[in-house]
Amino acid sequence: MAKRVTGPEIEKLIQLLAKVPGLGPRSARRAALHLIKKKEQLLGPLGHAMDEAYHKVKICSCCGNVDTIDPCTVCSDVQRDQAVIIVVEDVSDLWALERAGAMNTAYHVLGGTLSPLDGVGPEDLNIKGLIDRVSVGGIRELIIAVNATVEGQATAHYITDRLTDLGVKITRLAHGVPVGGELDYLDEGTLTAALRARTAI
Amino acid sequence: MAKRVTGPEIEKLIQLLAKVPGLGPRSARRAALHLIKKKEQLLGPLGHAMDEAYHKVKICSCCGNVDTIDPCTVCSDVQRDQAVIIVVEDVSDLWALERAGAMNTAYHVLGGTLSPLDGVGPEDLNIKGLIDRVSVGGIRELIIAVNATVEGQATAHYITDRLTDLGVKITRLAHGVPVGGELDYLDEGTLTAALRARTAI
Repeated sequence: MAKRVTGPEIEKLIQLLAKVPGLGPRSARRAALHLIKKKEQLLGPLGHAMDEAYHKVKICSCCGNVDTIDPCTVCSDVQRDQAVIIVVEDVSDLWALERAGAMNTAYHVLGGTLSPLDGVGPEDLNIKGLIDRVSVGGIRELIIAVNATVEGQATAHYITDRLTDLGVKITRLAHGVPVGGELDYLDEGTLTAALRARTAI
Repeated sequence: MAKRVTGPEIEKLIQLLAKVPGLGPRSARRAALHLIKKKEQLLGPLGHAMDEAYHKVKICSCCGNVDTIDPCTVCSDVQRDQAVIIVVEDVSDLWALERAGAMNTAYHVLGGTLSPLDGVGPEDLNIKGLIDRVSVGGIRELIIAVNATVEGQATAHYITDRLTDLGVKITRLAHGVPVGGELDYLDEGTLTAALRARTAI
């Protein structure tokens, strides 16, 4: 803003809101005004929720999930099959797979993918924690559910190499046509994979 | 989420973030995870800023601007020409005009537009406050800068009618071609207005 038109506290709020992914400088101003208009219903409760999250949030020492307890809700859920671990890149992937609701298993969050160009090596990811979990025993299957990107696949290969001697079954997500997807819009790689992995009707 | 995968405090944070304009349920989850990852740089400071704003925010009793002091930064700025008042619908319009930086005047925020269908009458807007400000005297010009919508124009007419006896000069924003705009994409009303208000080169 060229000249100050409001208090420094409100400008600070706008500056910080602009750093939230999905909001830019313009939508941060709009968001701040909306929050102020809904002071009792939104601004107060949201500030309180952020404060609570700030003080209570923990990274699960077992799987790397974000929670307010450690071990996390997923790791301490006795109704889950804790002998099957789905390995994901990020917490958001864990949450996405849980929304699908197809499995009722444990998870392991790597915290990224191997990327030599960005200086991300195996020691920067939560791979040692995974090896430790598998080494303890009692794990029946590892489902590698990393993204189907070059880095994701390289990471999947590295993990498979490291764990192959431990005698655990390692699987990966199927490649194929997304449900609801149109063939015309899919790339050649996906179509080739879908043809190769065709199933009997 | 089908099953709980994280603590109730974090789910609450996601629920509230989803109510911020510009964020939906999906981007709220992404925002929450980003905030947690940037706990020290973003989550903590943003929670604190919201708390500060919650406790300190005030609506300026003179012009209706949002600030932490009353009268607000704009109303108490002695370097502004307080004899010229730009009348706007919303605080966001005040801030937008200030970013343009073309004028150095006072403002008056109506808090909406007349809209009989939505049950918004003159008593629901900050029109009485405007009449009081003008009645006290010392105001040289009112610039009506409401949106160029039907409701905005109706509101402009109403205000002009009410204030015309007070002997203050009342102006409105010019209609015309937006700077950088292409004629081909403009509506007939704007083109007609731009032609009628043509100026000598």
